[in-house]
Amino acid sequence: MIRFECDYLEGAHPLIMRRLMETNLEQTPGYSTDEHCAHARRLIRAACNAPDADVHLLVGGTQTNAIVTASILRPYQGVLCAETGHINVHEAGAIEACGHKVLPLATTDGRLSAESIQAYYDRHFQDSDHEHIVQPAMVYISQPTENGTLYSKAELTAISTLCRRLGMPLYLDGARMGYGLASPKNDLTLSDIASLCDVFYIGGTKVGALFGEALVITNPALKKDFRYLIKQRGGLLAKGRLLGIQFETLFADDLYMMISRHAITLAMQIRKELLAKGIPLYYDSYTNQQFPILTKEQTAILKNDYTFNFWADLPDDRSVIRLCTSWATMPQHVAQLCETIRKKL
Amino acid sequence: MIRFECDYLEGAHPLIMRRLMETNLEQTPGYSTDEHCAHARRLIRAACNAPDADVHLLVGGTQTNAIVTASILRPYQGVLCAETGHINVHEAGAIEACGHKVLPLATTDGRLSAESIQAYYDRHFQDSDHEHIVQPAMVYISQPTENGTLYSKAELTAISTLCRRLGMPLYLDGARMGYGLASPKNDLTLSDIASLCDVFYIGGTKVGALFGEALVITNPALKKDFRYLIKQRGGLLAKGRLLGIQFETLFADDLYMMISRHAITLAMQIRKELLAKGIPLYYDSYTNQQFPILTKEQTAILKNDYTFNFWADLPDDRSVIRLCTSWATMPQHVAQLCETIRKKL
Amino acid sequence: MIRFECDYLEGAHPLIMRRLMETNLEQTPGYSTDEHCAHARRLIRAACNAPDADVHLLVGGTQTNAIVTASILRPYQGVLCAETGHINVHEAGAIEACGHKVLPLATTDGRLSAESIQAYYDRHFQDSDHEHIVQPAMVYISQPTENGTLYSKAELTAISTLCRRLGMPLYLDGARMGYGLASPKNDLTLSDIASLCDVFYIGGTKVGALFGEALVITNPALKKDFRYLIKQRGGLLAKGRLLGIQFETLFADDLYMMISRHAITLAMQIRKELLAKGIPLYYDSYTNQQFPILTKEQTAILKNDYTFNFWADLPDDRSVIRLCTSWATMPQHVAQLCETIRKKL
Amino acid sequence: MIRFECDYLEGAHPLIMRRLMETNLEQTPGYSTDEHCAHARRLIRAACNAPDADVHLLVGGTQTNAIVTASILRPYQGVLCAETGHINVHEAGAIEACGHKVLPLATTDGRLSAESIQAYYDRHFQDSDHEHIVQPAMVYISQPTENGTLYSKAELTAISTLCRRLGMPLYLDGARMGYGLASPKNDLTLSDIASLCDVFYIGGTKVGALFGEALVITNPALKKDFRYLIKQRGGLLAKGRLLGIQFETLFADDLYMMISRHAITLAMQIRKELLAKGIPLYYDSYTNQQFPILTKEQTAILKNDYTFNFWADLPDDRSVIRLCTSWATMPQHVAQLCETIRKKL
Repeated sequence: MIRFECDYLEGAHPLIMRRLMETNLEQTPGYSTDEHCAHARRLIRAACNAPDADVHLLVGGTQTNAIVTASILRPYQGVLCAETGHINVHEAGAIEACGHKVLPLATTDGRLSAESIQAYYDRHFQDSDHEHIVQPAMVYISQPTENGTLYSKAELTAISTLCRRLGMPLYLDGARMGYGLASPKNDLTLSDIASLCDVFYIGGTKVGALFGEALVITNPALKKDFRYLIKQRGGLLAKGRLLGIQFETLFADDLYMMISRHAITLAMQIRKELLAKGIPLYYDSYTNQQFPILTKEQTAILKNDYTFNFWADLPDDRSVIRLCTSWATMPQHVAQLCETIRKKL
Repeated sequence: MIRFECDYLEGAHPLIMRRLMETNLEQTPGYSTDEHCAHARRLIRAACNAPDADVHLLVGGTQTNAIVTASILRPYQGVLCAETGHINVHEAGAIEACGHKVLPLATTDGRLSAESIQAYYDRHFQDSDHEHIVQPAMVYISQPTENGTLYSKAELTAISTLCRRLGMPLYLDGARMGYGLASPKNDLTLSDIASLCDVFYIGGTKVGALFGEALVITNPALKKDFRYLIKQRGGLLAKGRLLGIQFETLFADDLYMMISRHAITLAMQIRKELLAKGIPLYYDSYTNQQFPILTKEQTAILKNDYTFNFWADLPDDRSVIRLCTSWATMPQHVAQLCETIRKKL
Repeated sequence: MIRFECDYLEGAHPLIMRRLMETNLEQTPGYSTDEHCAHARRLIRAACNAPDADVHLLVGGTQTNAIVTASILRPYQGVLCAETGHINVHEAGAIEACGHKVLPLATTDGRLSAESIQAYYDRHFQDSDHEHIVQPAMVYISQPTENGTLYSKAELTAISTLCRRLGMPLYLDGARMGYGLASPKNDLTLSDIASLCDVFYIGGTKVGALFGEALVITNPALKKDFRYLIKQRGGLLAKGRLLGIQFETLFADDLYMMISRHAITLAMQIRKELLAKGIPLYYDSYTNQQFPILTKEQTAILKNDYTFNFWADLPDDRSVIRLCTSWATMPQHVAQLCETIRKKL
Repeated sequence: MIRFECDYLEGAHPLIMRRLMETNLEQTPGYSTDEHCAHARRLIRAACNAPDADVHLLVGGTQTNAIVTASILRPYQGVLCAETGHINVHEAGAIEACGHKVLPLATTDGRLSAESIQAYYDRHFQDSDHEHIVQPAMVYISQPTENGTLYSKAELTAISTLCRRLGMPLYLDGARMGYGLASPKNDLTLSDIASLCDVFYIGGTKVGALFGEALVITNPALKKDFRYLIKQRGGLLAKGRLLGIQFETLFADDLYMMISRHAITLAMQIRKELLAKGIPLYYDSYTNQQFPILTKEQTAILKNDYTFNFWADLPDDRSVIRLCTSWATMPQHVAQLCETIRKKL
């Protein structure tokens, strides 16, 4: 069985494992106050061209999303996001557990637009009863989105400009950031993202690390007392150096981008093969997640040798499935999958 | 200016005011432990034919909804409701402030159906990732709904039967309960509601009282320690007797139903007049709220002499407005409104 | 049975009842946007000599305390208060339900000192692990305290000066404010309190109203969006005018102070009688609550004709009880109590 | 510089690192649904002699404490613990962020007694106003305590018996569990703990793992839906297998106890040396934390070559410090420390 169901099937990139071994018996102070973390923070600030940013190394994405949201919002405020946004549908109410409503906006492919944000904002404040309604006060987007789609530089700039005008911090969830940056359709750099967003995270869990997300806070107003919040939400890892070591490895020698490109190269092979076969794609993804629409027969054939995710059932009896590549995907596995697509579907 | 914008424009029914005056210098213990509250609870249990119910007298609806929800749900659970439900759109995130997600279901007229509840429930538990998703664990409905519509006995029975089968408590928000019971289309008694719901409240604020909602808990599993929750959420009125006196007055000599019928009689006059004039109704309401669809010109004419609520703008430039009657509405005011409709619109 | 157990035994001052009757059938918009509320706010601002203050009229004290705290604190911050403070011991965890820790400080008579606040603050920030500990970020005091004691102008000034230097808002719970202002030992005016505190409330429930607390926010930084918070916590009364009418009555013609003085005059009679009899007082209270220490025999005698609260059991088998007067206490009842003390204890 | 400041200075036991390397490129499903986690759960159940227990593998202690507490308590309930308990003083309000009050009990050495729990419980329910006060509803203890002290089997049995009689779940925080089990003064087995507690965790972070705590739920009433809570609080590690691999290594071939004994042997050497030198101990600890009371001069000497924690300043100008050993402490470092104590203090 070859697994394509998600992008966190394996451990970590071998270089990370080696560094964890080499440093294992070093003695360091706890809670990310060690030198590895300091080094990782410097590398990430440099990669983002954001010398004044605060960088916090956290364990996982749900935790990070909840902490950021709890940090920004006052109790009666909510967070705007795509109805498909991870915080709306796949975090078991982590945002609500912090007291905040998620305010979902309709979307066709996981992306918000500046227009839809503006419209929601206007509708809220023009309502004479707006004090009876949760106030929209920050915007959550993901890049790539949960659907594998990407914001262009123009789109992100429009959202950023609007958010700054309206005084709503813009937060970007980059759980799969590397797979966005490495996409052939991408025109955004980390530096662009750092300058357009108020806070964002660079995902490690799905891009080469055992675990870990690097949160970058560029808006000075959002920096204050952040470590209290991390601690309160159970996110302050005792042996914080584990995060430091992983991120200093990922951000040395371009490793993060190299392994991201690997995943994208393989995903594009699958994409090409699917399209060549005439299999439609549910979302037009140029990232590491591909969403082919398959008949029951095609699905059954694929299930013989591969694991993947069911995404949605269509009214016409076909299904959308999700195939993921990652830093760890083996080229021969993709070659085999392509052959299956070509010959058997 | 004659006001039809809502059903809480005046103080309280004169009989209530008289009783508050008469009892004003009585000395009673606090926090609803007095004899007036005990009497009110007895009367309400009798009216509901629910001798074992717990009855709590609370100040307002948002407070009541939040307390009930906080009482029932565990942290990762959410409450199903119509997308137009008051808890979803008009309580400034009171449910989320208790840590819970509101799970909105699509609806055309404010009502849920057993089918839509079942479908949501099935979709949740059939999802292999359901532990990542807020668990539906109670159902919130309102009677009448925010749109003036009513559940029939058959519909409420279907929902109740389903909820009991699925183990999800059914909570009915009766902010305008009297105006539902008094509707010519209603076939539900208080006794029916008590036997079909696990917990519900009988609204006083909009039906004759200065303020106050009588919460009735019929499901024994939901009774425990409820007063702690009321206190914690700031709902335990020091001079609880004020609630007791009001409800013992409303539930003596059929006053609650008498004043509710008054409002409905007047609302039906308005409804009839609108239909006679060929003015369409946005919702088919037989309760105290009427939702005519007016042209800009009609709206302008009405605004000269009356206040009302804007409900929605239609794509064809017409608007939906809301006209409310209440226990306090004066027949001559309705007569005048009807004449305006007849002669000027 | 004559009742002295608390200061919310009766309804409201007759002038309030009259005004509620007179205005009962007026039609007003809801949620404290009516003219009575506007008038009450003007009168309160004038009484506080705080023309720029925001005034919000709320139903009860626990609600008010929770809303203010939720409004001020970020999630990882806590509120300093006396260990006997109402929010610490008698609100069923209302502050914690908003996510915040109450940080109790030891006290002998219910009062905090600037020194104890400074010491806690220093200890916190000097701890190298302070990011692992709830951050002190506001101060809660009550005037009079739960023990009937009073802050002098010098003491409140010292606390205020410190709080401003440390950047911690100072909140004063004035549930019994009138009984403090009317005390023979008081040297603080409402104007002093308004200039020394960032936010405080003037209690109505215990001082002549059916219910109601007037919250005064003088610190501009704390005013923003406050009505959202009131709504979210279930504190936005539909018929807000009820609060407006009560407070415009209390703050016209010096009524609030007149009825407060009445309570204090009677409390001082009781105090004098107790001391004359050689009965020790547990707290040295010059306000409407008196805390005599009685033997079992004395307690038994008093229980024959009066109700009162048990406050504490002493190791030597004596008990502390609480006797309260209020705006409604009848002089002949106090005279009778004094005679009982004099002749029977 | 030799470090004794805490027990999480290094990475993980070499056997764990080896297993992480060996398994690194295995493909496994996420979120602890893999076979390593299943194996670890079986081993832990066996070690606890609790075949029906639910075992969840979590990342850190603060997270675990918050999740357990949120799972057990209803909103108005609080958790009893020693005033020195980790949840009360060192988790930045994680429990309060879940809406619950921590109810601290006085203690001399970090341990609760059945008597103090019973007394608090009685005082609460005998208070006529108990519905205004947070209800005690679970008990948190730690073994060893934060002060290095231990509950005896008799003491834990007394607490357990009481908790079961009162219907309050007993939760034991075993962050340093191994160092308790390996103590010469310990008379409790894992099996005893499993049978006496309703839920407890076996700490990995401080006892050989990179990170990880194994939560064991023996009370069937507390098992339901637990994974939802883990997810909601950000504790569901994507690559859960990392936890599984670590715990299956720790619980194979007695590794957990072997490395714990190592730490205790070294701690007892330090303890003996301190006592031989006449240096008093602040707590009578037979576990891996030692709390000598040192003069300023002694502290200064020690600081030249060793790191340690300042614990408390005594009124007589002496200080309490904390010295920790762990699974990773090198015998030659302890030998050197002992020589320093012997010759230089």
